[in-house]
Amino acid sequence: MKLYHSSGSPNSRRVRILIAEKGLDIELAPVDLGAKEQFSDAYRAINPRAVVPTLVLDDGTAIGEVPAIMRYLDEAYPKLPLLGATPKEKALITMWERRAELEGFASVMEGARNAAAGLKGRAISGPHGYEQIPALIERGRNRTQQFYADMNLHMASSHHVAGEFFSLADIQLLCLLDFATGWGRMPIPDDCTALTAWHQKTSGRASARL
Amino acid sequence: MKLYHSSGSPNSRRVRILIAEKGLDIELAPVDLGAKEQFSDAYRAINPRAVVPTLVLDDGTAIGEVPAIMRYLDEAYPKLPLLGATPKEKALITMWERRAELEGFASVMEGARNAAAGLKGRAISGPHGYEQIPALIERGRNRTQQFYADMNLHMASSHHVAGEFFSLADIQLLCLLDFATGWGRMPIPDDCTALTAWHQKTSGRASARL
Repeated sequence: MKLYHSSGSPNSRRVRILIAEKGLDIELAPVDLGAKEQFSDAYRAINPRAVVPTLVLDDGTAIGEVPAIMRYLDEAYPKLPLLGATPKEKALITMWERRAELEGFASVMEGARNAAAGLKGRAISGPHGYEQIPALIERGRNRTQQFYADMNLHMASSHHVAGEFFSLADIQLLCLLDFATGWGRMPIPDDCTALTAWHQKTSGRASARL
Repeated sequence: MKLYHSSGSPNSRRVRILIAEKGLDIELAPVDLGAKEQFSDAYRAINPRAVVPTLVLDDGTAIGEVPAIMRYLDEAYPKLPLLGATPKEKALITMWERRAELEGFASVMEGARNAAAGLKGRAISGPHGYEQIPALIERGRNRTQQFYADMNLHMASSHHVAGEFFSLADIQLLCLLDFATGWGRMPIPDDCTALTAWHQKTSGRASARL
């Protein structure tokens, strides 16, 4: 089994953290996004969407999309489940992971990819190029601010993102906040104290250094 | 257990078809989107994102987001699994369901919601209003055409969306094509013969009438 990834890709980082939290030992194969290696014929044969990460199993099956890779790893290695142990836990973790993706990750990406000088003609990741749309810079930033406020409200009454224990949903939020406040240059507002407290606490985990 | 849904909502339809395919009997509670009932205090108390569907369990737990609801139902009622029986099947179904969502459903919605006269100020579903952006009408339509071409290529060599058996990924593609070609007014191009053949075959299932 081999994980094709990029050290700078927040989507790759989500999987690397899951692997570390579960204590798995999986070979990493770097893909050089700076050199556009994801668009090479060799990589497209592995993942036709030309995005990282991709998990390739020993039988050659290529699994793309972060939720699918994480689902595979949590099902194939059920010790220390990070996607939940019961149907209800699994559903709530899926729900919160998805909300963080739809309202958080997508918003940050919208604001950042439409603004980045290096991503002209690449406003959406994937195999097909789409031009940047200036109006989406402000919308993405507004949506991100709204997400911060909504998640702050949620974290004021929840120990972890999907309840009382650390899960995939926490990995999602951690990677998204680090990306938003770093490359995305969208700091968490000062009044989002519960979200900031969760971010600081979670950043202290050993896996967060990855 | 009760499913809050709307008869005209393609996201609600995805869950209704899953329920029918699994042979489950679940109480349906209609939410009147025309009367904006999803924004009522009563419904927001169930689902703060103010979208349908939501599955409410007998203990009061409210599960939002279609993938989370489907995951719950397939885990709680494991007979006739539609999300896969092995880790590999589960991963591949998750991957294809997600690709259809990211590249198909999101594209159709982008083109349609930014064009609809009745959705001014509501270009994105959810609790927060966002203005329509005219440039997204064309982009959404272009992305949908690209999705049709990509999925046609895939369906030329695959019996069902995620392999050899009917799954959640087929339900996703069926609902998306019916919505895109109906309300979205984006017909499948004539040269997408494999995609059209799959669509016609799958539309013949009893559950597709829902």
